[in-house]
Amino acid sequence: MKKTNTMNNRFVMPRRVEFADTDMAGIVHFAAFFRYMETAEHELFRSLGLTLVDMERDPHLGWPRVSCGFDFIRPLRFGDDFEVHIGVANISEKSVAYEVEVVREGKTIARGHSTSACCEVGTGIKVRSVPIPAEARGKLQQYLVRK
Amino acid sequence: MKKTNTMNNRFVMPRRVEFADTDMAGIVHFAAFFRYMETAEHELFRSLGLTLVDMERDPHLGWPRVSCGFDFIRPLRFGDDFEVHIGVANISEKSVAYEVEVVREGKTIARGHSTSACCEVGTGIKVRSVPIPAEARGKLQQYLVRK
Amino acid sequence: MKKTNTMNNRFVMPRRVEFADTDMAGIVHFAAFFRYMETAEHELFRSLGLTLVDMERDPHLGWPRVSCGFDFIRPLRFGDDFEVHIGVANISEKSVAYEVEVVREGKTIARGHSTSACCEVGTGIKVRSVPIPAEARGKLQQYLVRK
Amino acid sequence: MKKTNTMNNRFVMPRRVEFADTDMAGIVHFAAFFRYMETAEHELFRSLGLTLVDMERDPHLGWPRVSCGFDFIRPLRFGDDFEVHIGVANISEKSVAYEVEVVREGKTIARGHSTSACCEVGTGIKVRSVPIPAEARGKLQQYLVRK
Repeated sequence: MKKTNTMNNRFVMPRRVEFADTDMAGIVHFAAFFRYMETAEHELFRSLGLTLVDMERDPHLGWPRVSCGFDFIRPLRFGDDFEVHIGVANISEKSVAYEVEVVREGKTIARGHSTSACCEVGTGIKVRSVPIPAEARGKLQQYLVRK
Repeated sequence: MKKTNTMNNRFVMPRRVEFADTDMAGIVHFAAFFRYMETAEHELFRSLGLTLVDMERDPHLGWPRVSCGFDFIRPLRFGDDFEVHIGVANISEKSVAYEVEVVREGKTIARGHSTSACCEVGTGIKVRSVPIPAEARGKLQQYLVRK
Repeated sequence: MKKTNTMNNRFVMPRRVEFADTDMAGIVHFAAFFRYMETAEHELFRSLGLTLVDMERDPHLGWPRVSCGFDFIRPLRFGDDFEVHIGVANISEKSVAYEVEVVREGKTIARGHSTSACCEVGTGIKVRSVPIPAEARGKLQQYLVRK
Repeated sequence: MKKTNTMNNRFVMPRRVEFADTDMAGIVHFAAFFRYMETAEHELFRSLGLTLVDMERDPHLGWPRVSCGFDFIRPLRFGDDFEVHIGVANISEKSVAYEVEVVREGKTIARGHSTSACCEVGTGIKVRSVPIPAEARGKLQQYLVRK
């Protein structure tokens, strides 16, 4: 997957609508946008040499979602090529907030936001938020959206 | 599925977490909550004798999502029994806004909101918002959340 | 969820098609049938007082799929009420084979099969098949399909 | 997406496991393999200048699944890069059978098969199989697996 940093510090993930993403209204089902957003968040991490699920650490470190939402402006359809533009809106002690824009042929399809908390996770483990490791904190600054 | 109207005009949909709803963090994947919310919206419609996809009408009438979001407070896990409480927050000329609370054993798991616009839909058809039919408008009042 | 044992030892799970299960062809997306089958398998376990993911044991015990398939005969559509009939076709030392029939208004919608192996599982753990515990083996006999 | 034709006439689709593809067993959920297979089928069509959902035609032409299955050999995990190799096993008057192999670092992860029938489809339309158009038939020969 090619990735481009746009002028305003966004990470860009290209993607194509798959058949399973559609519903009987003939357009992309709204829940698919949340998967697109999540994958863009993971690819942003990956581009920084970070991982969203640190298996080396015990208990494992993950980033469960605290809140998220989308405003839907135009529909996407089967086979459409589009881009997810994602930037870091804010970094606090234990969580990161993202801004997302889904774009097709230069037009905004949807605008989303998401906040994930750095947590200890794992099957059978009580989810507990912990401070963001210094390395991740430093690297994530690279995609901090310029206001 | 049994359904109960609580005192504050909410429609209640019981549900159990399925294995496919979980992710490798050992909890329900956040995108599953949007499916839960949507199905609760459909069951609310159904309880009123309404359908969310009117196939009799040509072009078909559907309710694409305009915006939606969730705040996640506690995790859900495989096999958990929970309830989705949904009420109508607002009805405008062409759209309906819902309030949702996901509840397990009396504790709030997540709070969501969603707005759907009444639209002409269908494969190969340009999505276009239209006024909400009078029957639907009248019946939806029944779940209008008392403030 | 009400459950009925039919004469031929099948466990029966009633279900309704949800909007997110459909695709732009206006019918239930084929991959949804595999989720239906899996949930029926879990409900069968549950009806026997068994769990498909034993978290008490360390490492955890799970039942990853070894093989599965479906033949699709008639389409399902949004809002359709249907049943998944599931029986145990065979129990070997480390795996269980199931037979599934998806039924709507007395007509066969699809026929499926699935084999799961009893395995040690968990995030960061190498999946390894182990003998089926005696209790599970005994109880699963109850749904052995009479030939 | 880069695509390579291997010596034995397979179309190859590279892909990376997304977080939403995993389940609480810490591996890719088995139903995700069916989405991978379907997307590979669509990309194969696309590489031939064909579309799986012909919207120009009225009623629309689609390819509902008649049967499909998978044998799972090794697990896939979050972030894994893998390939779906897909070839045409057989072309009959109204349907096409595919052979699929999911490969990671030269090792077989899973083997699948799928048969789709050429059908008239659409919301509110009775699904009916029709002969495969001559152009599609001719082009699909290109990926006919050499035995």
